[in-house]
Amino acid sequence: MRAVDVILKKRDGGELSRAEVQFFVSGVTAGTLPDYQASALLMAILLRGMTMEETAWLTDAMVDSGRRLDLSSIPGIKVDKHSTGGVGDKTSLVLAPLAAACGVPVPMMSGRGLGHTGGTLDKLEAIPGFRVNLSLAEMKAALEQVGCAMIGQTKEIAPADKKLYALRDVTGTVESIPLISASIMSKKIAEGIDALVLDVKTGSGAFMKTEADSRRLAESLVSIGTASGVKTEAIITRMDAPLGCAVGNALEVIECLEVLKGRGPADLVEVSVALTSRMLVLGRVAGTLAEGQARARAAIASGIGVERFRRIVEHQGGDPRIVDDYHLLPSAPERHIVAAPRAGFLLRLDAELVGRASVWLGAGRDRVEDAVDPGVGIMVAAKPGDELAAGDPILELHYREPGRRDQAIALALAAIEMGDQRPVAASLIMEEVL
Amino acid sequence: MRAVDVILKKRDGGELSRAEVQFFVSGVTAGTLPDYQASALLMAILLRGMTMEETAWLTDAMVDSGRRLDLSSIPGIKVDKHSTGGVGDKTSLVLAPLAAACGVPVPMMSGRGLGHTGGTLDKLEAIPGFRVNLSLAEMKAALEQVGCAMIGQTKEIAPADKKLYALRDVTGTVESIPLISASIMSKKIAEGIDALVLDVKTGSGAFMKTEADSRRLAESLVSIGTASGVKTEAIITRMDAPLGCAVGNALEVIECLEVLKGRGPADLVEVSVALTSRMLVLGRVAGTLAEGQARARAAIASGIGVERFRRIVEHQGGDPRIVDDYHLLPSAPERHIVAAPRAGFLLRLDAELVGRASVWLGAGRDRVEDAVDPGVGIMVAAKPGDELAAGDPILELHYREPGRRDQAIALALAAIEMGDQRPVAASLIMEEVL
Repeated sequence: MRAVDVILKKRDGGELSRAEVQFFVSGVTAGTLPDYQASALLMAILLRGMTMEETAWLTDAMVDSGRRLDLSSIPGIKVDKHSTGGVGDKTSLVLAPLAAACGVPVPMMSGRGLGHTGGTLDKLEAIPGFRVNLSLAEMKAALEQVGCAMIGQTKEIAPADKKLYALRDVTGTVESIPLISASIMSKKIAEGIDALVLDVKTGSGAFMKTEADSRRLAESLVSIGTASGVKTEAIITRMDAPLGCAVGNALEVIECLEVLKGRGPADLVEVSVALTSRMLVLGRVAGTLAEGQARARAAIASGIGVERFRRIVEHQGGDPRIVDDYHLLPSAPERHIVAAPRAGFLLRLDAELVGRASVWLGAGRDRVEDAVDPGVGIMVAAKPGDELAAGDPILELHYREPGRRDQAIALALAAIEMGDQRPVAASLIMEEVL
Repeated sequence: MRAVDVILKKRDGGELSRAEVQFFVSGVTAGTLPDYQASALLMAILLRGMTMEETAWLTDAMVDSGRRLDLSSIPGIKVDKHSTGGVGDKTSLVLAPLAAACGVPVPMMSGRGLGHTGGTLDKLEAIPGFRVNLSLAEMKAALEQVGCAMIGQTKEIAPADKKLYALRDVTGTVESIPLISASIMSKKIAEGIDALVLDVKTGSGAFMKTEADSRRLAESLVSIGTASGVKTEAIITRMDAPLGCAVGNALEVIECLEVLKGRGPADLVEVSVALTSRMLVLGRVAGTLAEGQARARAAIASGIGVERFRRIVEHQGGDPRIVDDYHLLPSAPERHIVAAPRAGFLLRLDAELVGRASVWLGAGRDRVEDAVDPGVGIMVAAKPGDELAAGDPILELHYREPGRRDQAIALALAAIEMGDQRPVAASLIMEEVL
């Protein structure tokens, strides 16, 4: 088989065979396929698309580039959750302890933030001492002892994805539904889970800007998961404004603890409970979504969720005292209030721009190799729909370096849109894809 | 400027700015743009296209990657000809001496054969001693003394094209009208000519399979040339069957000499005279195409064309005795006749398959680094439209290695289509693009 023939076939809109897809992935994994041929094929795939069948083969080949973990020694139905990423999207830190507390083992492998979106690993590492790089044996031990492990992707998991993602990132071939689907699902299938709940974000702060694209992605993900024996469900949720009120790593840890203590912002609670309830149904500890929601809310009210969070932190080497004393978390020394420029209703608080402002302050990274500052970030003081007087606070920047403040303020101001009419409230959970 | 942003812009169907195009070409030339980014952009260009303006900028940037020669010290209007390539397409060896003999200086830079099509340099090198690698000083001397130089591309000319072409060849990004246009025209503009005649081949044996694609390519080439101050005209000619009767390097040299001696096959004479007459008009030694045709035919009849060919050969180190004694040219020891399988009319003699059969015998190359055998090839004994008895010869294979014969016979047989109805004769010269 010649690489150029595979490229020509996809370039001209053809469907690749299973053998051709495997040839591509194994060539990338082994380093025998030159990057320039891989990137030409990636661009052809992005522009010509792939059928569901080709996407499933691509996913399989990526799973087979590494190990598929065997978690069968752990009792129960193992359920993970994945979000396509947003601004202030911190539900993993809420639902993992809640689901574990309700009896569902949660082997969660997450990623780091990139671009304007945050990442679960960065948030966890804001907790002093927290180790996300558990070995597979440690991961299993955590599942057995705490019912949950929150770790980074190990090198055994879909190594082809790591290479392909690095290439996609620099060749303008990230935004392809088949490539995104295979990237997400290969890692999830390889981690040995039985079921998966997906939170596909849609809107200005999400990867997918339209509901139609989000639905296509959700359908693609669910189809691949189901074909690989992982029971997969997705909900599509709105990401036009930051979720909750905290954007930035330590700030988001605090907000998750507030949710688990029953004091979280309504939007974050709503999405977290909705995702948890699906995990409980998939994990067969709840019979219906309504029962799952009730159990999730009860786990908040009774405090077993926050206690599980404390045990997870402790088991993974973190300082459990942060649960009660937020001062033990890193913070930024400086504050700046971005206020309402006029009286009226807050119409929009653009998630992507708020995310970019937080990255500018140091909360995220533009390049994979950049370090993040766990203490900096942005607190949202007013949500879209709120009626404000001129000068009322909308965003509070928590920053360390004065030199980074002004550009962040400019981005924050650009995120704000005021008007005279109260905007129509849109529901946060848009649809489900099963 | 970031390469990935340029890629994203083209990927999403945008028009690149002049600065972005220059950034791409200078990055490729300097080696600062990684191949994997260049190939992703090439695929995006192939699938999204380029405007005429972008294509002209691309051409300019490729010209500027090397030197633009100054031939102003040579009197007269310097005219070159370029063909997009076909099977048996040997008109350069006829028209260059004819035009020079009629008083038009012809600084001709040609290429080698690749795939099923032949190349002028390979044909010239079938002449014992002929040197195609003249220095620029030697090229100028040849123009001054003989009125013609037939050479290969020097390293000063459009070095970006050499790098880009090598990358396009292995990444499935050859068949793009903007990329083809810039590749052809950058080399022609850089060689310092005043005018250019293009022969855009169309049909099964050509790069462009349809007349519509050929017209688009011709328009693109003419537009770029004109914008760069090179007066450019194109004719579109049919390439469904081999041009003339010889396919293979020494065999084609002999056929060109026969044309110059007034004994050439009608189709080859027609195209050669048409192209020469355009060169004479562009070179202002003829006022009209009819006058140009008359002068070209007179140069054949009087023998000044073949004498000029002899002088070119001699000046570039070749053995001039080959003009009179074809036995001094390399030849192949073995012959095999491919005969008509039944009585009837020859409907088709597929140029690409005949070309591939000749490559299989060793007359061409599949890879740039392959060597060619100057003596082997195929003689066409019957042309489409001929009425044949069963067993009448259609193709005569001239081969050296018996192990290569059978596959070439299979390709040759596949090229032949017989029928009971005399096919409608189609005109060879399809249209002109000025």
